Amino acid sequence: MNIVLPQWLRDEPLLPLVDDAAAMKWTNDLVHKNIEHGTGGPFASCIVDQSDGSILGVGVNLVTSLNCSILHAEIVAITNASDNLGTWLLGGTRSLTLYASAEPCAMCMGAIPWTGIRRVVIGARDEDIRAVGFDEGVKATSWLEGYAERGIDVVQDVCRADAIAALQAYIDRGGEVYNGHRHHDNKS
Amino acid sequence: MNIVLPQWLRDEPLLPLVDDAAAMKWTNDLVHKNIEHGTGGPFASCIVDQSDGSILGVGVNLVTSLNCSILHAEIVAITNASDNLGTWLLGGTRSLTLYASAEPCAMCMGAIPWTGIRRVVIGARDEDIRAVGFDEGVKATSWLEGYAERGIDVVQDVCRADAIAALQAYIDRGGEVYNGHRHHDNKS
Repeated sequence: MNIVLPQWLRDEPLLPLVDDAAAMKWTNDLVHKNIEHGTGGPFASCIVDQSDGSILGVGVNLVTSLNCSILHAEIVAITNASDNLGTWLLGGTRSLTLYASAEPCAMCMGAIPWTGIRRVVIGARDEDIRAVGFDEGVKATSWLEGYAERGIDVVQDVCRADAIAALQAYIDRGGEVYNGHRHHDNKS
Repeated sequence: MNIVLPQWLRDEPLLPLVDDAAAMKWTNDLVHKNIEHGTGGPFASCIVDQSDGSILGVGVNLVTSLNCSILHAEIVAITNASDNLGTWLLGGTRSLTLYASAEPCAMCMGAIPWTGIRRVVIGARDEDIRAVGFDEGVKATSWLEGYAERGIDVVQDVCRADAIAALQAYIDRGGEVYNGHRHHDNKS
């Protein structure tokens, strides 16, 4: 499995992101571009060095275009940053923030602590994502406490309305809601 | 990020696995081989078609050899099966079992429902993994119920003693316990 960013994303200028609002605005723009280019679901993420705002990794949802269910935006951003930095330990001596247009699903929530990233900034809430039809998975209700115990700060609701609008734009265009277990007996 | 299986694993014969015990024995053998070859942590996984025992995907932990924290055995097996089948929906019309030498961490537990796989067979328990020093992450205590609600059956403790022995073999050889958040303030 070669996780290759779509050409439009490789062509995107990676200008420094000066603060959380600027970073989330850019991340939400990536969601809209991912919808327009038809390269995946309505989710985007980036990993930023807090010292200078430089973008170290970027990802959009590529589940349907690369045909792999784990290719959520945060997973793609983590793999991209790992390539760029040449290490599995993204955090280490760096202070990094992971921006996510929408609250990480159970998988992505589980993935972030393994990276050493210590700050996560989120747009749409879990309930906003479920409201448009996506399942967020079997997520610990106490995940924020679990993050705090591991030294990871979480900031919620940054540009939330914009993130919700991006989710809705996907649904309005008839985008596929592609959770695997929906294809058989499923109560949720 | 190109997720390439190590050469020794690509050379491994993929003979049909006739039952759970045979599948878990083979999976535990992969753990030992991954330790011997120094290609990653003490975890292995495979995805098997229940109709004929054919192996559709295989994975070992590649975190340290490919320098990416998300490359747990289950994630690698899912990407390998996605490549082999050419679809993100592994389950679909097929009845598949995912074998894991050890209970999936929070990330892998979150990933499995997105694949459409409806049966999971596990060797070592969560507490066995934590006992040798690995963190399993912020996992919902009710994850088995969450799986049941999504139509996913889980069988635990298959060849558990062999799986524990494989974990211990890694520690005895001085293998790295590579959880990102251990590199800074961390209580667990």
